[in-house]
Amino acid sequence: MYSIGIDLGSVASKGVVFDGQKVIAKVILPTGWSPQKTGEKILKDLLLEGGIDRNQVKAIVATGYGRGILSFIDKKVTEITCHGVGAYFLDSEIRTVIDIGGQDSKVIKIDDKGNVIDFLMNDKCAAGTGRFLQVMANALDLDISQLSQVAEGAVPQNINSMCTVFAESEVVSLIAEGASKESIAAGLLQSVANKTYSLISKVGVQNKVFFSGGVSQNPLLKRYLEEKLGITIYTSDMAQYMGAIGAAIIGYNI
Amino acid sequence: MYSIGIDLGSVASKGVVFDGQKVIAKVILPTGWSPQKTGEKILKDLLLEGGIDRNQVKAIVATGYGRGILSFIDKKVTEITCHGVGAYFLDSEIRTVIDIGGQDSKVIKIDDKGNVIDFLMNDKCAAGTGRFLQVMANALDLDISQLSQVAEGAVPQNINSMCTVFAESEVVSLIAEGASKESIAAGLLQSVANKTYSLISKVGVQNKVFFSGGVSQNPLLKRYLEEKLGITIYTSDMAQYMGAIGAAIIGYNI
Ligand code: SF4
Repeated sequence: MYSIGIDLGSVASKGVVFDGQKVIAKVILPTGWSPQKTGEKILKDLLLEGGIDRNQVKAIVATGYGRGILSFIDKKVTEITCHGVGAYFLDSEIRTVIDIGGQDSKVIKIDDKGNVIDFLMNDKCAAGTGRFLQVMANALDLDISQLSQVAEGAVPQNINSMCTVFAESEVVSLIAEGASKESIAAGLLQSVANKTYSLISKVGVQNKVFFSGGVSQNPLLKRYLEEKLGITIYTSDMAQYMGAIGAAIIGYNI
Repeated sequence: MYSIGIDLGSVASKGVVFDGQKVIAKVILPTGWSPQKTGEKILKDLLLEGGIDRNQVKAIVATGYGRGILSFIDKKVTEITCHGVGAYFLDSEIRTVIDIGGQDSKVIKIDDKGNVIDFLMNDKCAAGTGRFLQVMANALDLDISQLSQVAEGAVPQNINSMCTVFAESEVVSLIAEGASKESIAAGLLQSVANKTYSLISKVGVQNKVFFSGGVSQNPLLKRYLEEKLGITIYTSDMAQYMGAIGAAIIGYNI
């Protein structure tokens, strides 16, 4: 038997099939206008990619921002819990999860059983989230996925404004004044690292630290954060699926 | 003899000529790219409008965001102090000044002599400032000056996001879902009133309350704020010049 976890994020939606031991299929799609349709599409694609039948699935668990909207699920669970379970499954030594998604950021502390013992979430302010980087990449005529690569090796330009709106104006002025895209991109990644650092500082950091969410696939940002924290931060190419994995594991154990 | 006060704001720059008793000339200009040039132009226009000569001016005092940049001034003074002095001059019964400008908002408490006894300023977050309304007016294809008029009489649409970036997306979705411009405009003014209310709540409000800054010229927003606070709020068509007036008075008494 299998279980399925679906994480409907504000920007990207992820799904995985779990066989009780490991993830055997994964799907990621932009959430788009209709989280419901996206959720249905993810289910279909997962069955296809996993080569399994709907009746081999013992449970489907949804998490994330849009988790309330799916009609075909057995259970919905908060992202916080799912991230805890997912991270612990990936590496049982993880005690802190930093998750930066398209529109929010969270720091989650888990104990040696994978239970969430503390967390802090920012979903009120676009600064320090993927949305900040999206707006800024746009102002720089870059794709968000290019930021780290472009910035690599550059001396970060100081960005004074933490606010996305004010920082965007600052970037436009910096370009007009002749600052390089490379240094501005580096400065913007540093700005997100700083904002994340202040979120982490409120919860306190406990080793091992895992970096998840879409923004984690940003090597330079990870490095800036490591420098600020003075520790090694782990991530994985499965980092974006952490919530979905946690949901699938919870589903398997229903 | 006369004195001149110049308030170089982030969006609008204001100047007044003071004769020791009253304001005899006033000028307002967009700050634009060069606060220095704008300051020079304001000085020239003030002399012209006041029909006075440069050597009849005993002192020029600058305030506001760009106050450090002018070379021809005798003194620079913070906006907080100038607003206190300006408000007290306008009406010596004023004890609280709410100032919402293009990029910041402040609440200033003054005593019965016009001295500042407490204040709180938000210049870090675009929400609750003129910038928020600017971004939103743009999303609604309206001029910022039309918001109050368009919104008058409409039932305010609830805007969930306080953040300018997230609220902009919300407005775009609301339009797509068929919500009326009128109700969205009303909801946006209510959002600024709410944000201002939470700033005021931290300082505490003391009668009389004066509303100044560019955003004060927004009757519906003033009314929403009065409803939330349960008190009458005063304003004046000179409200935008409050900082400049304070600066000029300080200059006159040098
Ligand atoms: S600081 Fe800027 S990005 Fe953050 S909530 Fe305020 S407007 Fe939004």
